[in-house]
Amino acid sequence: MDKFALHPAFAATSEPLAELKLCHARLQLDARWSWIVLIPRKVGAREIEHLSPQNRQQLMEEIVLAGAAVKAVAAAIGRPVDKLNVGQLGNITPQLHVHVIGRRPDDPAWPGPVWGVGQPVPYAPDTLARAIAAAQGPLGAMRSAS
Amino acid sequence: MDKFALHPAFAATSEPLAELKLCHARLQLDARWSWIVLIPRKVGAREIEHLSPQNRQQLMEEIVLAGAAVKAVAAAIGRPVDKLNVGQLGNITPQLHVHVIGRRPDDPAWPGPVWGVGQPVPYAPDTLARAIAAAQGPLGAMRSAS
Repeated sequence: MDKFALHPAFAATSEPLAELKLCHARLQLDARWSWIVLIPRKVGAREIEHLSPQNRQQLMEEIVLAGAAVKAVAAAIGRPVDKLNVGQLGNITPQLHVHVIGRRPDDPAWPGPVWGVGQPVPYAPDTLARAIAAAQGPLGAMRSAS
Repeated sequence: MDKFALHPAFAATSEPLAELKLCHARLQLDARWSWIVLIPRKVGAREIEHLSPQNRQQLMEEIVLAGAAVKAVAAAIGRPVDKLNVGQLGNITPQLHVHVIGRRPDDPAWPGPVWGVGQPVPYAPDTLARAIAAAQGPLGAMRSAS
Protein backbone atom coordinates (compact mmCIF):
# COMPACT_ATOMS: atom_id res chain seq x y z
CA MET A 1 0.00 0.00 0.00
CA ASP A 2 1.24 3.50 -0.81
CA LYS A 3 2.44 5.64 2.05
CA PHE A 4 0.49 8.83 2.72
CA ALA A 5 2.25 11.95 1.45
CA LEU A 6 1.03 15.47 2.09
CA HIS A 7 0.17 17.37 -1.10
CA PRO A 8 2.93 19.99 -1.61
CA ALA A 9 0.41 22.84 -1.84
CA PHE A 10 -0.08 22.75 1.94
CA ALA A 11 3.57 23.38 2.78
CA ALA A 12 3.52 26.76 1.05
CA THR A 13 0.46 28.10 2.85
CA SER A 14 0.45 26.55 6.32
CA GLU A 15 2.54 25.38 9.25
CA PRO A 16 2.32 21.95 10.95
CA LEU A 17 0.55 21.88 14.34
CA ALA A 18 -0.10 18.29 15.39
CA GLU A 19 -0.71 14.72 14.29
CA LEU A 20 -4.19 13.76 15.45
CA LYS A 21 -5.53 10.20 15.29
CA LEU A 22 -6.77 10.62 11.73
CA CYS A 23 -5.58 14.01 10.53
CA HIS A 24 -2.46 16.03 10.11
CA ALA A 25 -3.38 19.49 11.50
CA ARG A 26 -1.88 22.71 10.16
CA LEU A 27 -2.20 26.44 10.89
CA GLN A 28 -3.03 28.48 7.79
CA LEU A 29 -0.41 31.23 7.40
CA ASP A 30 -2.87 34.07 7.03
CA ALA A 31 -3.13 36.46 9.98
CA ARG A 32 -6.53 37.72 8.79
CA TRP A 33 -8.19 34.60 10.21
CA SER A 34 -7.58 32.00 12.92
CA TRP A 35 -7.63 29.04 10.56
CA ILE A 36 -6.74 25.36 10.91
CA VAL A 37 -6.60 22.82 8.08
CA LEU A 38 -7.15 19.09 8.78
CA ILE A 39 -5.78 16.56 6.28
CA PRO A 40 -6.79 12.91 6.89
CA ARG A 41 -3.73 10.70 6.38
CA LYS A 42 -5.51 8.43 3.87
CA VAL A 43 -3.92 7.77 0.50
CA GLY A 44 -6.13 8.75 -2.44
CA ALA A 45 -8.98 10.28 -0.42
CA ARG A 46 -10.50 13.32 -2.08
CA GLU A 47 -14.05 13.35 -0.69
CA ILE A 48 -15.48 12.59 2.77
CA GLU A 49 -17.21 9.51 1.30
CA HIS A 50 -13.77 8.04 0.51
CA LEU A 51 -13.20 7.57 4.26
CA SER A 52 -14.59 4.56 6.10
CA PRO A 53 -17.61 5.28 8.35
CA GLN A 54 -15.31 4.95 11.37
CA ASN A 55 -12.82 7.44 9.95
CA ARG A 56 -15.62 9.82 9.04
CA GLN A 57 -16.73 9.83 12.65
CA GLN A 58 -13.16 10.47 13.76
CA LEU A 59 -12.97 13.34 11.27
CA MET A 60 -16.09 14.86 12.78
CA GLU A 61 -14.57 14.76 16.28
CA GLU A 62 -11.33 16.28 14.98
CA ILE A 63 -13.34 19.08 13.34
CA VAL A 64 -14.86 19.89 16.73
CA LEU A 65 -11.41 19.75 18.33
CA ALA A 66 -10.00 22.04 15.65
CA GLY A 67 -12.83 24.46 16.41
CA ALA A 68 -11.67 24.63 20.03
CA ALA A 69 -8.09 25.15 18.83
CA VAL A 70 -9.18 27.93 16.45
CA LYS A 71 -10.89 29.68 19.37
CA ALA A 72 -7.72 29.29 21.46
CA VAL A 73 -5.61 30.81 18.67
CA ALA A 74 -8.04 33.69 18.22
CA ALA A 75 -8.02 34.48 21.95
CA ALA A 76 -4.21 34.24 22.13
CA ILE A 77 -3.71 36.77 19.35
CA GLY A 78 -6.30 39.17 20.78
CA ARG A 79 -9.02 38.60 18.18
CA PRO A 80 -11.49 36.24 19.93
CA VAL A 81 -14.17 34.53 17.84
CA ASP A 82 -17.47 32.91 18.63
CA LYS A 83 -18.43 31.93 15.05
CA LEU A 84 -16.81 29.06 13.17
CA ASN A 85 -16.89 28.19 9.49
CA VAL A 86 -16.15 24.64 8.36
CA GLY A 87 -15.52 23.81 4.73
CA GLN A 88 -14.44 20.85 2.64
CA LEU A 89 -13.91 22.15 -0.90
CA GLY A 90 -10.77 20.78 -2.56
CA ASN A 91 -11.56 22.28 -5.95
CA ILE A 92 -7.92 23.31 -6.32
CA THR A 93 -5.87 20.94 -4.11
CA PRO A 94 -6.91 17.34 -4.88
CA GLN A 95 -6.31 15.83 -1.43
CA LEU A 96 -9.13 15.63 1.13
CA HIS A 97 -8.84 18.47 3.65
CA VAL A 98 -11.19 20.38 5.92
CA HIS A 99 -10.88 24.05 6.81
CA VAL A 100 -11.96 25.25 10.27
CA ILE A 101 -11.95 29.04 10.45
CA GLY A 102 -12.83 31.58 13.13
CA ARG A 103 -15.02 34.41 11.88
CA ARG A 104 -15.66 37.94 13.18
CA PRO A 105 -18.08 40.59 11.91
CA ASP A 106 -15.07 42.89 11.42
CA ASP A 107 -13.04 40.43 9.30
CA PRO A 108 -12.28 41.30 5.65
CA ALA A 109 -14.70 38.78 4.11
CA TRP A 110 -17.62 38.85 6.57
CA PRO A 111 -20.32 37.59 6.03
CA GLY A 112 -19.06 35.87 2.87
CA PRO A 113 -16.70 32.89 2.75
CA VAL A 114 -12.95 33.46 3.18
CA TRP A 115 -11.64 31.29 0.32
CA GLY A 116 -10.12 33.23 -2.53
CA VAL A 117 -10.57 36.62 -0.85
CA GLY A 118 -7.61 39.00 -1.31
CA GLN A 119 -4.06 38.01 -0.47
CA PRO A 120 -2.84 36.21 2.68
CA VAL A 121 -1.33 38.49 5.35
CA PRO A 122 1.78 36.98 7.01
CA TYR A 123 1.84 36.60 10.78
CA ALA A 124 4.44 38.63 12.70
CA PRO A 125 6.93 36.02 14.07
CA ASP A 126 5.96 36.49 17.74
CA THR A 127 2.25 36.35 16.92
CA LEU A 128 2.78 33.16 14.92
CA ALA A 129 4.60 31.56 17.84
CA ARG A 130 1.73 32.50 20.17
CA ALA A 131 -0.84 31.17 17.71
CA ILE A 132 0.93 27.82 17.32
CA ALA A 133 1.38 27.42 21.07
CA ALA A 134 -2.29 28.23 21.68
CA ALA A 135 -3.51 25.72 19.06
CA GLN A 136 -1.37 22.95 20.44
CA GLY A 137 -3.16 23.08 23.80
CA PRO A 138 -6.50 21.69 22.56
CA LEU A 139 -4.90 19.61 19.80
CA GLY A 140 -2.38 18.07 22.17
CA ALA A 141 -5.23 16.36 23.97
CA MET A 142 -5.72 14.11 20.94
CA ARG A 143 -2.27 13.63 19.48
CA SER A 144 -1.62 10.46 17.49
CA ALA A 145 0.28 7.69 19.22
CA SER A 146 2.06 6.84 15.96
CA MET B 1 -38.52 22.18 25.84
CA ASP B 2 -39.04 24.42 22.81
CA LYS B 3 -40.18 22.81 19.59
CA PHE B 4 -37.80 23.04 16.64
CA ALA B 5 -38.84 25.67 14.09
CA LEU B 6 -37.09 26.16 10.76
CA HIS B 7 -35.55 29.62 10.35
CA PRO B 8 -37.74 31.52 7.83
CA ALA B 9 -34.74 32.33 5.61
CA PHE B 10 -34.71 28.76 4.29
CA ALA B 11 -38.29 28.87 2.94
CA ALA B 12 -37.43 31.67 0.53
CA THR B 13 -34.42 29.97 -1.03
CA SER B 14 -35.08 26.23 -0.95
CA GLU B 15 -37.68 23.51 -1.27
CA PRO B 16 -38.27 20.64 1.24
CA LEU B 17 -36.94 17.22 0.20
CA ALA B 18 -37.05 14.83 3.16
CA GLU B 19 -36.95 14.43 6.92
CA LEU B 20 -33.85 12.41 7.76
CA LYS B 21 -33.15 11.00 11.24
CA LEU B 22 -31.44 14.21 12.36
CA CYS B 23 -31.87 16.76 9.60
CA HIS B 24 -34.52 18.44 7.55
CA ALA B 25 -33.17 18.26 3.95
CA ARG B 26 -33.93 20.92 1.34
CA LEU B 27 -33.05 21.56 -2.31
CA GLN B 28 -31.52 24.99 -2.88
CA LEU B 29 -33.55 26.81 -5.56
CA ASP B 30 -30.61 27.75 -7.73
CA ALA B 31 -30.29 25.88 -11.01
CA ARG B 32 -26.60 26.83 -11.30
CA TRP B 33 -25.68 24.10 -8.81
CA SER B 34 -27.05 20.79 -7.55
CA TRP B 35 -27.25 21.84 -3.94
CA ILE B 36 -28.80 20.36 -0.80
CA VAL B 37 -29.05 22.02 2.61
CA LEU B 38 -29.25 19.94 5.81
CA ILE B 39 -30.72 21.54 8.92
CA PRO B 40 -30.46 19.47 12.13
CA ARG B 41 -33.77 19.66 14.00
CA LYS B 42 -32.14 20.82 17.25
CA VAL B 43 -33.42 23.92 18.99
CA GLY B 44 -30.76 26.59 19.48
CA ALA B 45 -27.92 24.82 17.65
CA ARG B 46 -25.71 27.19 15.68
CA GLU B 47 -22.40 25.29 15.53
CA ILE B 48 -21.54 21.61 15.07
CA GLU B 49 -20.21 21.53 18.65
CA HIS B 50 -23.73 22.31 19.90
CA LEU B 51 -24.81 18.82 18.81
CA SER B 52 -24.20 15.79 21.01
CA PRO B 53 -21.39 13.46 19.83
CA GLN B 54 -24.04 10.98 18.70
CA ASN B 55 -25.89 13.61 16.67
CA ARG B 56 -22.60 14.83 15.18
CA GLN B 57 -21.95 11.33 13.90
CA GLN B 58 -25.46 11.18 12.46
CA LEU B 59 -24.85 14.54 10.79
CA MET B 60 -21.70 13.17 9.18
CA GLU B 61 -23.62 10.21 7.75
CA GLU B 62 -26.38 12.51 6.47
CA ILE B 63 -23.73 14.68 4.78
CA VAL B 64 -22.49 11.60 2.89
CA LEU B 65 -26.09 10.69 2.02
CA ALA B 66 -26.76 14.24 0.79
CA GLY B 67 -23.65 13.92 -1.39
CA ALA B 68 -25.18 10.87 -3.08
CA ALA B 69 -28.44 12.79 -3.51
CA VAL B 70 -26.61 15.78 -5.01
CA LYS B 71 -24.98 13.47 -7.55
CA ALA B 72 -28.39 11.95 -8.36
CA VAL B 73 -29.85 15.44 -8.91
CA ALA B 74 -26.92 16.47 -11.09
CA ALA B 75 -27.25 13.34 -13.25
CA ALA B 76 -31.04 13.76 -13.55
CA ILE B 77 -30.76 17.32 -14.86
CA GLY B 78 -27.97 16.43 -17.28
CA ARG B 79 -25.10 18.11 -15.46
CA PRO B 80 -23.31 15.24 -13.67
CA VAL B 81 -20.74 16.05 -10.99
CA ASP B 82 -17.88 14.16 -9.42
CA LYS B 83 -16.71 16.91 -7.03
CA LEU B 84 -18.57 17.86 -3.86
CA ASN B 85 -18.21 20.90 -1.65
CA VAL B 86 -19.42 20.78 1.96
CA GLY B 87 -19.77 23.91 4.06
CA GLN B 88 -21.08 24.93 7.45
CA LEU B 89 -20.97 28.72 7.57
CA GLY B 90 -24.09 30.29 9.09
CA ASN B 91 -22.66 33.81 9.12
CA ILE B 92 -25.99 35.16 7.89
CA THR B 93 -28.66 32.64 8.96
CA PRO B 94 -28.20 31.83 12.67
CA GLN B 95 -29.44 28.23 12.65
CA LEU B 96 -27.02 25.33 12.17
CA HIS B 97 -27.10 24.11 8.56
CA VAL B 98 -24.73 22.32 6.22
CA HIS B 99 -24.49 22.89 2.47
CA VAL B 100 -23.64 19.98 0.17
CA ILE B 101 -23.00 21.19 -3.37
CA GLY B 102 -22.01 19.52 -6.62
CA ARG B 103 -19.24 21.31 -8.50
CA ARG B 104 -18.13 21.28 -12.13
CA PRO B 105 -15.17 23.00 -13.78
CA ASP B 106 -17.67 24.82 -16.04
CA ASP B 107 -19.83 26.20 -13.22
CA PRO B 108 -19.98 29.99 -12.70
CA ALA B 109 -17.87 30.06 -9.50
CA TRP B 110 -15.30 27.32 -10.18
CA PRO B 111 -12.82 26.89 -8.51
CA GLY B 112 -13.97 29.37 -5.86
CA PRO B 113 -16.79 28.82 -3.36
CA VAL B 114 -20.41 29.29 -4.48
CA TRP B 115 -21.74 31.33 -1.56
CA GLY B 116 -22.57 34.93 -2.40
CA VAL B 117 -21.72 34.54 -6.10
CA GLY B 118 -24.13 36.33 -8.46
CA GLN B 119 -27.88 35.83 -8.30
CA PRO B 120 -29.76 32.52 -8.02
CA VAL B 121 -31.16 31.16 -11.30
CA PRO B 122 -34.64 29.64 -10.92
CA TYR B 123 -35.22 26.06 -12.05
CA ALA B 124 -37.60 25.48 -14.94
CA PRO B 125 -40.66 23.72 -13.40
CA ASP B 126 -40.07 20.38 -15.12
CA THR B 127 -36.36 20.42 -14.23
CA LEU B 128 -37.23 21.19 -10.61
CA ALA B 129 -39.63 18.24 -10.49
CA ARG B 130 -36.91 15.96 -11.91
CA ALA B 131 -34.34 17.28 -9.43
CA ILE B 132 -36.61 16.73 -6.43
CA ALA B 133 -37.57 13.22 -7.56
CA ALA B 134 -33.91 12.32 -8.10
CA ALA B 135 -32.84 13.58 -4.65
CA GLN B 136 -35.59 11.69 -2.91
CA GLY B 137 -34.20 8.35 -4.12
CA PRO B 138 -31.03 8.40 -1.99
CA LEU B 139 -32.65 10.45 0.80
CA GLY B 140 -35.66 8.13 1.00
CA ALA B 141 -33.36 5.38 2.22
CA MET B 142 -32.94 7.23 5.50
CA ARG B 143 -36.22 9.00 6.10
CA SER B 144 -37.17 9.76 9.71
CA ALA B 145 -39.68 7.48 11.38
CA SER B 146 -41.22 10.43 13.22
